[in-house]
Amino acid sequence: MVDQRFFANQGPFTLAQIAEWTKAEIAADIAAKTVSDVAPLDKASHTDISFFDNTKYIEHFERSRAGACFVRPKYAPRAPEGMITLVCDDPYRAYALVAQHFYPDAITQHGISAHAHIDPSATLGKDVHVASGAVIGAHAVIGERTSIGSNTVIGAGVVIGDDTRIGANNTLSHCLIGSRVIIHRGVHIGQDGFGFALGREGHVKVPQLGRVIIEDDVEIGSGTCIDRGTGPDTTIGAGTKIDNLVQIGHNVQVGRHAVIVAQAGIAGSSRIGDGVVIGGQVGIAGHLKVGSGARIAAQSGVAVDLEAGQSYGGSPAVPIKDWHRQVIALNRMIKKDK
Amino acid sequence: MVDQRFFANQGPFTLAQIAEWTKAEIAADIAAKTVSDVAPLDKASHTDISFFDNTKYIEHFERSRAGACFVRPKYAPRAPEGMITLVCDDPYRAYALVAQHFYPDAITQHGISAHAHIDPSATLGKDVHVASGAVIGAHAVIGERTSIGSNTVIGAGVVIGDDTRIGANNTLSHCLIGSRVIIHRGVHIGQDGFGFALGREGHVKVPQLGRVIIEDDVEIGSGTCIDRGTGPDTTIGAGTKIDNLVQIGHNVQVGRHAVIVAQAGIAGSSRIGDGVVIGGQVGIAGHLKVGSGARIAAQSGVAVDLEAGQSYGGSPAVPIKDWHRQVIALNRMIKKDK
Amino acid sequence: MVDQRFFANQGPFTLAQIAEWTKAEIAADIAAKTVSDVAPLDKASHTDISFFDNTKYIEHFERSRAGACFVRPKYAPRAPEGMITLVCDDPYRAYALVAQHFYPDAITQHGISAHAHIDPSATLGKDVHVASGAVIGAHAVIGERTSIGSNTVIGAGVVIGDDTRIGANNTLSHCLIGSRVIIHRGVHIGQDGFGFALGREGHVKVPQLGRVIIEDDVEIGSGTCIDRGTGPDTTIGAGTKIDNLVQIGHNVQVGRHAVIVAQAGIAGSSRIGDGVVIGGQVGIAGHLKVGSGARIAAQSGVAVDLEAGQSYGGSPAVPIKDWHRQVIALNRMIKKDK
Repeated sequence: MVDQRFFANQGPFTLAQIAEWTKAEIAADIAAKTVSDVAPLDKASHTDISFFDNTKYIEHFERSRAGACFVRPKYAPRAPEGMITLVCDDPYRAYALVAQHFYPDAITQHGISAHAHIDPSATLGKDVHVASGAVIGAHAVIGERTSIGSNTVIGAGVVIGDDTRIGANNTLSHCLIGSRVIIHRGVHIGQDGFGFALGREGHVKVPQLGRVIIEDDVEIGSGTCIDRGTGPDTTIGAGTKIDNLVQIGHNVQVGRHAVIVAQAGIAGSSRIGDGVVIGGQVGIAGHLKVGSGARIAAQSGVAVDLEAGQSYGGSPAVPIKDWHRQVIALNRMIKKDK
Repeated sequence: MVDQRFFANQGPFTLAQIAEWTKAEIAADIAAKTVSDVAPLDKASHTDISFFDNTKYIEHFERSRAGACFVRPKYAPRAPEGMITLVCDDPYRAYALVAQHFYPDAITQHGISAHAHIDPSATLGKDVHVASGAVIGAHAVIGERTSIGSNTVIGAGVVIGDDTRIGANNTLSHCLIGSRVIIHRGVHIGQDGFGFALGREGHVKVPQLGRVIIEDDVEIGSGTCIDRGTGPDTTIGAGTKIDNLVQIGHNVQVGRHAVIVAQAGIAGSSRIGDGVVIGGQVGIAGHLKVGSGARIAAQSGVAVDLEAGQSYGGSPAVPIKDWHRQVIALNRMIKKDK
Repeated sequence: MVDQRFFANQGPFTLAQIAEWTKAEIAADIAAKTVSDVAPLDKASHTDISFFDNTKYIEHFERSRAGACFVRPKYAPRAPEGMITLVCDDPYRAYALVAQHFYPDAITQHGISAHAHIDPSATLGKDVHVASGAVIGAHAVIGERTSIGSNTVIGAGVVIGDDTRIGANNTLSHCLIGSRVIIHRGVHIGQDGFGFALGREGHVKVPQLGRVIIEDDVEIGSGTCIDRGTGPDTTIGAGTKIDNLVQIGHNVQVGRHAVIVAQAGIAGSSRIGDGVVIGGQVGIAGHLKVGSGARIAAQSGVAVDLEAGQSYGGSPAVPIKDWHRQVIALNRMIKKDK
């Protein structure tokens, strides 16, 4: 039961609609039945739709009063009496898709605020929303249905695609942003990378002449900073999801569908492959290559290239089994001492 | 001697007033004597009040020219000639209370700026201050004497209590904020948690349908991010103090009077008990429980539940004595090698 | 070849001009020759100027088509035919100076925006730029040619020097800022330090009565937070460069020409010497002294004073050779186990 001050339920929906969105299988005779909300198994009522994914919660499933529930084929027979099962291979994904229909992250305001400051040379697409206090620089181009939050500053020449949602208090410059991108709040994209010719009598600033390229469907969490390239560009591949307070240095290239958890940092010129998962507070040194599909445990410190598809942990990071062995060995050593 | 461009001294005060605020004991014949400022022992003059707490500074105490000084009973006899001692059990706390009277963190501006953008459906209590460029959304409710800083954005439906101080450039949405809360700057509260149904062909965003609840007397440092819950709420208990650049994930529950030092991160759904102290740059994984009164050393990585009242260190974190043993064992190993 | 939407080339320049800026040696007969852009060795054409510094790229140098190139005396003879060599001791530094002339980080807007909110008691120097939505408080003093970005908030009494560049969405209070300082975006300077008299029944806030002093030529990255002192000041020495998302606690003193990489944190009252290099995600505990010229590897945790001129690594940090030995010893232990 959501707080209606903050969320507006767009339901009810019929199971036929839901089956169409999720490719779940349903019997024809229940297609017209409706559900009116989403809810977790233990909170759901007979008008709600839920999901069962993690077997740790099998008891919640068996006792749930949910009217309908996404479930893997194997567990469908264990559904309680009266529950309609929607069988599919990835119940959590199906649930996410349905929840998006119930609670689309709607733009609740429309139009261009009279209190926004938009350079006359900027180009705004159809149905763009610009909130109070937002600033849009010269020659910027904003795509259709894109939203710019309050007090966000878009620099000169920036190009943003369609259906992109940019929250409040962000600062974007020297960048090209794709479509369906989500940028939360207090995100800073396109500032100078940290580049100096170091010297005892003073460090000389090296002009940073590249850009930041954010591809389609990227999401960027609050407080995250992405520096522009030195000449090459800093790039974030399509579908990649970045959490809060992440630091991405100049010239970094992140592939497609990567996941970067909060407070991680990637130093300059490192290349991160597709589908890489980087845990919270991980540090990756500069000029390294992390192969596609690699997984890096939280707080690891990466100082060498990592292979594709492998898991790593520790600081300095090693293959994750070796890290577990290190931890065991250390604990064994101190047991001898006791 | 503070910089008067930034701080306004509200003194002098009599020792009678000071004794009343702090419950310190003073002799009746000096109750009318006044002090005109606060100062550390080594800088104080005969018109200042100071405190002696850390025995490392016993020499500063014995040589101090402070006119008055809070001190524990045991050390009062060692006060230098001419110093009035105000005997109490917690001199630093007493000093803090007095310093608050000398330098209340006064709202220096009043009223509603003509350059603030306030939705007509918002409700503002008596004596609210809203600064230039602040934005307050539809149906938001702001309590009495609460202050909203410049360019801060308050989302639709947000409720804020009385006497709360919100600085500049913050973004708050999907949240309920208590009374006497302090939120510094660049704080982002209520954005979507980092929730996706992961998949090779793309990650599906899971709507985040909960809120953030900030109880009374909480303080939140600059740059800190607190994500809203997935359906349950993210909650910060009364009196908890959070430093700068901290990350708090969705559904996290922090108890009362906890302390979270800068750059720490708490992953989704973890529960932190009352009075827990979390050091700087600590990482706490998701779905864990940290018992009340536990203390976690800086840079630790918490990967398992922690017991109440115990101290921990290391990554992965272990009981602090074991961590010290690990460090000693490692150093012994390399000494053999030399 | 830079993106002209974002960067404006101020060239061409003659080699005579370039030699004057960099003190490089050139033959008199080529002084009038011009170059029209800067470029890396492998991308440069005959109208570009480049540099050769890292011997790893010797092949790029030997095959480069750059028209002119900075090079150390030793490697000048290996230049390809047709390349003009500009011999100097620090080619990267020379290149940086030239690149600054080609692409000065120009203030592209001028004057005071009609949408800025400036207190009538503030003093603005000649040719100051204040962007839309910026707020300048009472009695603030802004030096000549200094630029204040959109939606940046300058508190009452703040003093800023000449030729300082402050980006968008920053918040500065209780501070004195030097000349030629660069502050990127979302930087928060001068908020209360994290100071409390801790207690079970609640933590008492200790008024923070100091300031932040930022000396000349400092650069501060996006999202960085610098708390004001408790009574003493927090100070950042001249020429020091600070990266993004760094935390600097109250009373910290950083010397001149130090380098602090992203996501590092320095706890209260620590003193960092001149020329210290602090790696990414390093944590330095409070009340410590780090000697001038010390170097601290990324992710280190500093818990004791560090000597001048030495290198350190690990958490807790030890001399870097000992840290390397620890890593080797751990790996040897687990090999025995396999």
